[in-house]
Amino acid sequence: MKYVFGVDVGGTFIKMGFFDHEGTLIDKWEIPSDKSLDGAQFLSVIAEEVKSRLAWEKATLSDCAGVGLVVPGPVLPDGSMPRLTNLDWGALNVREILSGQLTGMHVEVANDANAAALGELWKGAGEGKSSLVMVTLGTGVGGGVVLDGKILPGTTGAGGEIGHINVNEAETECCGCGLKGCVEQYAAAPGLIRVAKKRLQENKADSLLRERESFSAKDVCDAVKAGDAVADEAFQIMCRMLGKALAGVAVTVNPDLFVIGGGISRAGSIITETVSRYFEDFAFYAVKGTPIVLAKLGNDGGIIGAARLVTS
Amino acid sequence: MKYVFGVDVGGTFIKMGFFDHEGTLIDKWEIPSDKSLDGAQFLSVIAEEVKSRLAWEKATLSDCAGVGLVVPGPVLPDGSMPRLTNLDWGALNVREILSGQLTGMHVEVANDANAAALGELWKGAGEGKSSLVMVTLGTGVGGGVVLDGKILPGTTGAGGEIGHINVNEAETECCGCGLKGCVEQYAAAPGLIRVAKKRLQENKADSLLRERESFSAKDVCDAVKAGDAVADEAFQIMCRMLGKALAGVAVTVNPDLFVIGGGISRAGSIITETVSRYFEDFAFYAVKGTPIVLAKLGNDGGIIGAARLVTS
Repeated sequence: MKYVFGVDVGGTFIKMGFFDHEGTLIDKWEIPSDKSLDGAQFLSVIAEEVKSRLAWEKATLSDCAGVGLVVPGPVLPDGSMPRLTNLDWGALNVREILSGQLTGMHVEVANDANAAALGELWKGAGEGKSSLVMVTLGTGVGGGVVLDGKILPGTTGAGGEIGHINVNEAETECCGCGLKGCVEQYAAAPGLIRVAKKRLQENKADSLLRERESFSAKDVCDAVKAGDAVADEAFQIMCRMLGKALAGVAVTVNPDLFVIGGGISRAGSIITETVSRYFEDFAFYAVKGTPIVLAKLGNDGGIIGAARLVTS
Repeated sequence: MKYVFGVDVGGTFIKMGFFDHEGTLIDKWEIPSDKSLDGAQFLSVIAEEVKSRLAWEKATLSDCAGVGLVVPGPVLPDGSMPRLTNLDWGALNVREILSGQLTGMHVEVANDANAAALGELWKGAGEGKSSLVMVTLGTGVGGGVVLDGKILPGTTGAGGEIGHINVNEAETECCGCGLKGCVEQYAAAPGLIRVAKKRLQENKADSLLRERESFSAKDVCDAVKAGDAVADEAFQIMCRMLGKALAGVAVTVNPDLFVIGGGISRAGSIITETVSRYFEDFAFYAVKGTPIVLAKLGNDGGIIGAARLVTS
């Protein structure tokens, strides 16, 4: 029982992580995601990678304690998935199928945002704590809740989907989910760009962003650091909406800490400091001072969280 | 190991429940809360009640599997309490003290709103489910989160304090907690009365409430049922704020169901139906349709939840 695998299935690549049983990463590599395969065929590719990596190590399946797999979609408490739109898989029980392909090996499955939260608790920003809520600022706003060292998947796999908390009833545009006023509309990369563009239209002030035909969320954050007032308006809205949403989450699950990850978090401590300031404005006294910190594991959060699924 | 006790400590009365080990209530009674006692003295009164009830049954302490105790204040994960303002107790570890007074008996402690939620999952509206969030509409808006059959106490004892989620940034008056826009300002009994009075001032329409010098939350609900338009405005605001807050809670912990209890819930299904309608307006697709139902245990929720603490 020397090894475990942590596998992070994405729409473009499958990230494979090979760990010892204490969770030290021995090796990692990527293989392309073949979208022409159905779910069972796709999983058999992963099973072959597991077998060949073990053979390379002169180890057998019995030397492996398990495979943790994370997927970009909802996972129900029994390890089944209702759908996986990125890869066009139908409903299937990933845990059962992959375990069958590996002669009954211990397999656990989780949603990728939830697994990243678990990884941060195990080896990252929440090491030594027992609970955290992670929010991932990327093309959407994802999230994961880990309580007492375990992922909260939720009844329909929607645990930690905090990007869709309503934070603004006055919003007139729709979120990708169809609602209006979701935190994702302000704090995901497209949301930050959207708000910055609106501020540029409504505000005649000079701006580094005005010179460009198009700009990224990173450009907005860079402009904020360069002292650009219009970019800062969008940035403050992002952080305020996020701080307000986290204040609501804090009185619901009251975690040890919040962790912010995803592409936008690369802007650094300016994000956690600004979100914290707004969080305190909205926070009930018993949750004031809850730490809000940056994620530490970056792109490896998925494979590390996946590995944790089969070591605990 | 035939018996357990469930004890609900309130500011006026201590409710004692005597149960068999399957959770059937054999007997219940109340004793007055003596506020002149300190915490340890107060607990010794409870210990004496336990001993004398067992003696009456011709049973001994070894026939009792444990005492579950619930208190109207925050309880930390280790069973200690930072404060209990209602009874003027300082910080103390209730679990250790009461257990010592009962020769090492198994004692567990929880917050009263959390225990009521646990009771509803065990023997009430959530029987057979594994998770629920309960909201208690009384002089405040309390709440409890139960996941996988266990109370979520939260790091600082603030798990389930959903009455202090911000639902209205435009609010100008302060909540009792010092924030502005908490759901408690609209959905607790004083909140409903406050909003109804404001609507009466701002609205010249006839109203059953206008004839009275003062009115209760029950009067508002009765007027709603009698077709009073002004009372209904306040009622709709209450239900809308609550539905919006629960939609945020739903994407955070994604429970099997929501349970509404407390004094205002005696108005009946008009509350759950109206809250559900607003909930659906704000709910992310993956949590739409989460049932919102009335509590079943009423005033016995506390002692039943308390008993559950020492039977699971």
